[in-house]
Amino acid sequence: MASTLVRGKYVICKITGSNSAEVISDGAVFQRDGEIVEVGRYDVLKERHNAEEVIGSPNYVVMPGLVDNHFHVGVTPFQLGAPDLPLELWLPDRMGNKEVDPYLAHLYAATQMLKSGTTVMSPLTWSYTPINLEVVEKILKAGQDSGIRVSYGTLICNQNNLIAGPKGGDEELLSQLPADLATRFRSFITPSYLSKEEYISNVEEVLTKYAGNRYQRVRAIIAPSNVHRCSDDLLLALKEMAIKHNVGIHIHLQETVYQKLYGLRTWGKTPLQHLNDLDFLGPDVTCAHSVWLTDEDIEVMANTGTNVCHLASSNLRLQSGIAPVNRMLAKGVRVAMGTDEANINDDRDMLQEMRLVLKLHRVPGIENTPPTAYQVFQMATVNGAYNSGFGESIGTLEPGKRADIVLLNLQSIEKPYLHPDVSIVDAVVQRGRGIDVDTVMIDGEVVFRDGRFTHVDTDGLYKELKKLLTQPPLPHELERMELKRQIESYVKRFHAGTIGRLSPPHYQYNAQS
Amino acid sequence: MASTLVRGKYVICKITGSNSAEVISDGAVFQRDGEIVEVGRYDVLKERHNAEEVIGSPNYVVMPGLVDNHFHVGVTPFQLGAPDLPLELWLPDRMGNKEVDPYLAHLYAATQMLKSGTTVMSPLTWSYTPINLEVVEKILKAGQDSGIRVSYGTLICNQNNLIAGPKGGDEELLSQLPADLATRFRSFITPSYLSKEEYISNVEEVLTKYAGNRYQRVRAIIAPSNVHRCSDDLLLALKEMAIKHNVGIHIHLQETVYQKLYGLRTWGKTPLQHLNDLDFLGPDVTCAHSVWLTDEDIEVMANTGTNVCHLASSNLRLQSGIAPVNRMLAKGVRVAMGTDEANINDDRDMLQEMRLVLKLHRVPGIENTPPTAYQVFQMATVNGAYNSGFGESIGTLEPGKRADIVLLNLQSIEKPYLHPDVSIVDAVVQRGRGIDVDTVMIDGEVVFRDGRFTHVDTDGLYKELKKLLTQPPLPHELERMELKRQIESYVKRFHAGTIGRLSPPHYQYNAQS
Repeated sequence: MASTLVRGKYVICKITGSNSAEVISDGAVFQRDGEIVEVGRYDVLKERHNAEEVIGSPNYVVMPGLVDNHFHVGVTPFQLGAPDLPLELWLPDRMGNKEVDPYLAHLYAATQMLKSGTTVMSPLTWSYTPINLEVVEKILKAGQDSGIRVSYGTLICNQNNLIAGPKGGDEELLSQLPADLATRFRSFITPSYLSKEEYISNVEEVLTKYAGNRYQRVRAIIAPSNVHRCSDDLLLALKEMAIKHNVGIHIHLQETVYQKLYGLRTWGKTPLQHLNDLDFLGPDVTCAHSVWLTDEDIEVMANTGTNVCHLASSNLRLQSGIAPVNRMLAKGVRVAMGTDEANINDDRDMLQEMRLVLKLHRVPGIENTPPTAYQVFQMATVNGAYNSGFGESIGTLEPGKRADIVLLNLQSIEKPYLHPDVSIVDAVVQRGRGIDVDTVMIDGEVVFRDGRFTHVDTDGLYKELKKLLTQPPLPHELERMELKRQIESYVKRFHAGTIGRLSPPHYQYNAQS
Repeated sequence: MASTLVRGKYVICKITGSNSAEVISDGAVFQRDGEIVEVGRYDVLKERHNAEEVIGSPNYVVMPGLVDNHFHVGVTPFQLGAPDLPLELWLPDRMGNKEVDPYLAHLYAATQMLKSGTTVMSPLTWSYTPINLEVVEKILKAGQDSGIRVSYGTLICNQNNLIAGPKGGDEELLSQLPADLATRFRSFITPSYLSKEEYISNVEEVLTKYAGNRYQRVRAIIAPSNVHRCSDDLLLALKEMAIKHNVGIHIHLQETVYQKLYGLRTWGKTPLQHLNDLDFLGPDVTCAHSVWLTDEDIEVMANTGTNVCHLASSNLRLQSGIAPVNRMLAKGVRVAMGTDEANINDDRDMLQEMRLVLKLHRVPGIENTPPTAYQVFQMATVNGAYNSGFGESIGTLEPGKRADIVLLNLQSIEKPYLHPDVSIVDAVVQRGRGIDVDTVMIDGEVVFRDGRFTHVDTDGLYKELKKLLTQPPLPHELERMELKRQIESYVKRFHAGTIGRLSPPHYQYNAQS
């Protein structure tokens, strides 16, 4: 469809402050060839533009597509049999999961996202093998076949694949394993480590091929897995490459207290401050999780313009904690959000995740200021767009932007009644549900409408996935499952009782006496 | 239907431990005249019983109805225009809400609950006027007309309607108000205060009329609003009455840190310990919220057999905190749960609330033990049944129990794949959604099926509610809105800066340094 008029009772154009937004009542968006030409009152735009199709009605709210800024694994670890555990125990446990074909897994994830209003998927490929262009191709094909935008990064790691804590990393664990188990563990992890030069040439190949030039809905980013998982020289080389190619960096950081304590042990400071010493930080860098940030860390983030990707559900499910988002917002840190492997309902519904973010930071005390619905909406749109490499091209409904548009049925929001003083932004974040998404448009193209995908046969996809996943484990999967079973108790013992005394919390929700 | 065979791929009969349950695969429940006669394999029961109807198929999980153990207000305060605020500011703010006819409000709430699998509604009527048998009749009629079970209590209060904090209660606030405002505030709250004798005779009338004898799906409980809201002699009289009538007591307790600090100021101890001194506690008492329990409080609860009703979403939304449920479970306290005014999605979906409870208590540290899916399931069924006065008659699917049964479509749980090692209890709590509820049966009677209510015309109900709520405010509502506007800043000032230094938290999710 070359031109469309998208109509709603409300059009949420953009957030303009922590309690304000540009909203047009009885409004519409007119798009031509994937670009927004004008937003305004429906009756005015209807007269002014000769749209080939009108979509929507006063039963809908029209809003920008949502940006999931951080995710791994299409079929969730829970679906694959890995229960929720503290991250340190969950990482070895999920080694036992069956591998899923990257194309099918990401096509499935894309459908989950699209049907609940997400228009950008940011897969960070977790792999037990080095970067593989074949895998990249499959993931991008899943994006292309579903129509979703993709911000792609492969997690890069050349040390401490599995372990980081106050007692050390993988080498320290290895030294405690029986010789045979140590050998098998080493031979399992080391094939995934490349030399710095190999990583650079591999990543460069991906960047050259996919960084926005091949398929306009794709951006590539550089994703060192975590501070403790990369040597300093690798981190610096990746930073240099990011500058050279003018792309963003996305790195896991201080997801758990164990990771923070690894930093204190190794560098005498937090991982973030170590990155700062390396001159690694800046507005091109997004730190995922950032749960165990100190006050000083938050200052460093604010001063360097470094960004955060908040993963609220995942941080609960894997017992990582609750990121001090209130403090970040107070200091002006840009915070985006995502579903990681494991959002609260295990279904990649960003509207549900937005609602959790809205409520989770409501710390007791009438002086405490939690994020507003407007700020959460900003996290899930504009801030995600920035972090994922789409910059200013998406995230709001304004002339000149790409036409990534979601129509949300107002029924569950307004029925039977909603007080007229409640703003539509508050209403969407408090009461909008993924299942109320009626239509999703990307670049002006309808990719989901009335429960159906334009380009994906989900019945066929589900059948293929089921067929694949019910096949017996392959020999190398069996080997990994066995390794997992043998290593678990050692990992548990390695971390047990190591947290020690914590300094006062940013957030206090209850008290012992 | 006098007899039914209810069939599912799984029948979750009962929870038997923190990681175990009785589950029948390819199972069924046979009920006759509202009582469960047998549970077992579908093929066996099909041969053995000549059921008039077979409901379900291998596409469903069959489970006990859920018990919402604490709720107020059918149309939510958010729908009525009151934003989420800290409880202390929210209480005066919601004074400005329009009143909703109790019949329509509770019929609406009942439909919201039933369609997401809840079979017991526990309304605690919040009123600016004294107990009113006409209101009780309307609420019970809403229960009767929808088919839902009702555990009913009117909140009883003879002091501190609005204020409790380290600076005192309503009288202390009144002393700070301009004379005119103080007079109007007093004349607004005092009509709702009765003498002890009047309360007793009113409550006794309700109990005699409704305590299980008039309509078998109704239980009455006694609901002193909160410790600081009742004088000691009233609390003692209510306790005596509860014993006399053999009914349960449900009381708000230490919902916020301000309420705990009111106790320290007034009695030199926590409200719970004050109740203990009064000999008020025991297995007949349920304390709602219980967020700010100390270690000593939890010991007292365990030693007296006192129960808790956990209200996770509400405690987040109103900035009350997170109740130390892990500590309660470790001490063997019976914990039930409910949606209060304000569950996370503002829609009374207990499955969503169960999932929030499952994830919220996952405190960092590999030694910490959060509730299992089995424990959460127990909270939402058996423990709720106990606290709401239905005792052993519901909450599990076993011969002799009432046939309160929910059929949940397995699609969103199992599609496209779920690893066979994942238990169905884990799967339901992690991935089951309110919208997947297909059929709800109470006392063997189908009250909801395939998106439709057997007894309620929701279109008509929505129309009536909308008509009522779009009418202009009545004179006494306008007066209350004006009073609210004038009093808010005084309430804010009264509580500002009064929390002081807190002792270490039960749960720590992040750290300042």
